[in-house]
Amino acid sequence: MNKELSIGLIGFGCVGSGLYEVLNKSGLIQAKISKIVVKDRYKRRSIKQENFSYDVNDILEDETINVVVELIDDSEQAFEMVKRALASGKDVVSANKKMIAEHLDELLELANSNNVSFLYEGAVAGSIPILRNLEEYYNNDSLTSLQGIVNGTTNFILTQSNYGIGYADALAQAQELGFAESNPTLDVDGYDSKYKLSILLKHAFGLTVDPKELFNLGIRHISPHAVAYAKEKGYRIKLFSRAEKLGDKVVGFVAPHFVKSDHFAYSVNDEFNAVILEGLFSDQQLFVGKGAGSHPTASAVLSDISALKFDYKYEYRKVDADSDLKFSNDFFVKVYIESKYIEAINEVPFYHIDELFQSDQVNYQTGWVKFSELKTFDFNHREDLSLVILPEVLKETINTEKVANRPLLETLYN
Amino acid sequence: MNKELSIGLIGFGCVGSGLYEVLNKSGLIQAKISKIVVKDRYKRRSIKQENFSYDVNDILEDETINVVVELIDDSEQAFEMVKRALASGKDVVSANKKMIAEHLDELLELANSNNVSFLYEGAVAGSIPILRNLEEYYNNDSLTSLQGIVNGTTNFILTQSNYGIGYADALAQAQELGFAESNPTLDVDGYDSKYKLSILLKHAFGLTVDPKELFNLGIRHISPHAVAYAKEKGYRIKLFSRAEKLGDKVVGFVAPHFVKSDHFAYSVNDEFNAVILEGLFSDQQLFVGKGAGSHPTASAVLSDISALKFDYKYEYRKVDADSDLKFSNDFFVKVYIESKYIEAINEVPFYHIDELFQSDQVNYQTGWVKFSELKTFDFNHREDLSLVILPEVLKETINTEKVANRPLLETLYN
Repeated sequence: MNKELSIGLIGFGCVGSGLYEVLNKSGLIQAKISKIVVKDRYKRRSIKQENFSYDVNDILEDETINVVVELIDDSEQAFEMVKRALASGKDVVSANKKMIAEHLDELLELANSNNVSFLYEGAVAGSIPILRNLEEYYNNDSLTSLQGIVNGTTNFILTQSNYGIGYADALAQAQELGFAESNPTLDVDGYDSKYKLSILLKHAFGLTVDPKELFNLGIRHISPHAVAYAKEKGYRIKLFSRAEKLGDKVVGFVAPHFVKSDHFAYSVNDEFNAVILEGLFSDQQLFVGKGAGSHPTASAVLSDISALKFDYKYEYRKVDADSDLKFSNDFFVKVYIESKYIEAINEVPFYHIDELFQSDQVNYQTGWVKFSELKTFDFNHREDLSLVILPEVLKETINTEKVANRPLLETLYN
Repeated sequence: MNKELSIGLIGFGCVGSGLYEVLNKSGLIQAKISKIVVKDRYKRRSIKQENFSYDVNDILEDETINVVVELIDDSEQAFEMVKRALASGKDVVSANKKMIAEHLDELLELANSNNVSFLYEGAVAGSIPILRNLEEYYNNDSLTSLQGIVNGTTNFILTQSNYGIGYADALAQAQELGFAESNPTLDVDGYDSKYKLSILLKHAFGLTVDPKELFNLGIRHISPHAVAYAKEKGYRIKLFSRAEKLGDKVVGFVAPHFVKSDHFAYSVNDEFNAVILEGLFSDQQLFVGKGAGSHPTASAVLSDISALKFDYKYEYRKVDADSDLKFSNDFFVKVYIESKYIEAINEVPFYHIDELFQSDQVNYQTGWVKFSELKTFDFNHREDLSLVILPEVLKETINTEKVANRPLLETLYN
């Protein structure tokens, strides 16, 4: 049961070099990195050049290597490498959320037919063992909802907003501290959170949902007005990857949320990640830890490697369960929509308006909208529109008709 | 792999009846409670009398029952029943922390030699899957420390102290809300937390430590002065079950601690439980959930039952690991000692005094003490002495000699 592991490591960036340090220097688990393949021959690295090779075949065609740890950025290249590794009977550990979100079912089939393991705890919420917990502990279908703060960059920027630091300054600070990439789109527009949500949907509810089908709105257009609204109501703003059961449907999306002070997420600040689970009987559970960075992610990769010694595989029991759950965008959600322009707010169809505010500076409106209609707006690219989800629980149906032609706002405005 | 489970349930109190509801009403997992044995024939119960039997042999001698779920209060009776169940080849699920802490090794041996499972996630921190995480995810030896708020009653009382509500009133309120027993000693003097710590030591560090060897101080003598001291310094008081590596030793004890506002435990309030783990590479991890109550504990028991369908067993890999770790009381800790009487404070040997305060109302002294000496005091029964641990990290050694004859306090006093 205690398998000898000979590891081929592909990629030696932040996480790869962290893993090398952890594994080879600490001697924590008996596994050996036999080969390291990198792309760039001339990049300066923390260990000597003779440790590296530049051809991935050196790993994929080496029969003495039984574990491939894939830690490169490019998801399509990673996909090709991981497919070949699985097909040649090697266990694979990866932290490539985009690749996994986009190709999980194909990779699983390959892993199964070759009777090898494909593990990826490091892909979601770094050091928080959330996939393993969903697999092992919440493996019956009592789970009702999941709310994740799974992107440290955006949580850092949102936390800064509590101190009156605006988006641009907070982003610059995050970049300086190494939390944010020079091109921050993947993080700040919620793509990273969406890939992770797609993986979480599989392990939490057994559903395969193509990330293209998932709505993702990031934090780029959160204005000081929204922050002021949060302060006034005693809320904070958090970017949630969210999924929950609503009747016999499962709904899921990525968007900024106002959270109340008694919500577990309220105190999860800075670059920390968190996942809040709710079960029928277990009440709420909170998991918090570092979501990124060299060592925290490496520690998740290490736990996967350690599990391979015992031939651990995810069981995907919820996938196999005879479940009628279907993914759906058919529900109502209470939102805060803000704009400099009344006309922009009026584009969004409301079913009930709770509050509206108009001034020379800003206008906002809160109320209930149909998610399938909301989803048609490309809020990430609408500089004239800002959306934050309100704390009210989602509803399957709502009693009122669509508010016709927005008489309220127009009347007030004239 | 998907075993048919026929359950014999012993005990139908808060957790037992919760489990019955969860299992039989929700149909979440396919397992059947075949028999329920209770002690008291005349107690009013939530389901009809014909469901009950009053002789434990009805379960233990029934060969069609393959799982015994033991949920009674009396730990010695439970021990006898569980031994018989394991010996007759039945899997056992229990939430009896006292029994488990006191007899774990014997029960494990019995489970192993009969090739059955003995699971007890519900015994520690209710709905938080902490044992499973220690087993499965932190199974290499990178774990460095564990701090648990594992008793909801005391956390509720301590939370009330933040609002200026004294110990006696808060306890009465907890009793009214059903959080505290009419005889609260097990909770408020830290015995319950100690049994749980003993179990955690086994799964976190592979150590068997008899609860009798563990120091437990509860919250009975936390005075308004200590609460005021906490406020002044920006601390809150939390009762920790704490264990950590210190060199090649593991230390562990139960005591009230001052925690800073940036500590994960600071925001864990009311009856919630929490466990904070720290690893060499994973940084800090926080798990929060309900620690007691009918449904949260039943949900932990349910997860154990669900795991039995796949023949899950704890592996105790850290026990088997060739480890030189030894449990030890040989270390130094910074404390706050408070008393109405200078003489009482002077009984406690200090190695360094950091602060002292004297007044007609109260005296306190902070500084470093040797834990093995501190441990000889029966603080739970010393109404004239109150102890809270300060946030400074524990030390293996300290540079100064014992402070001789307490000149400082006496001088100031005269």
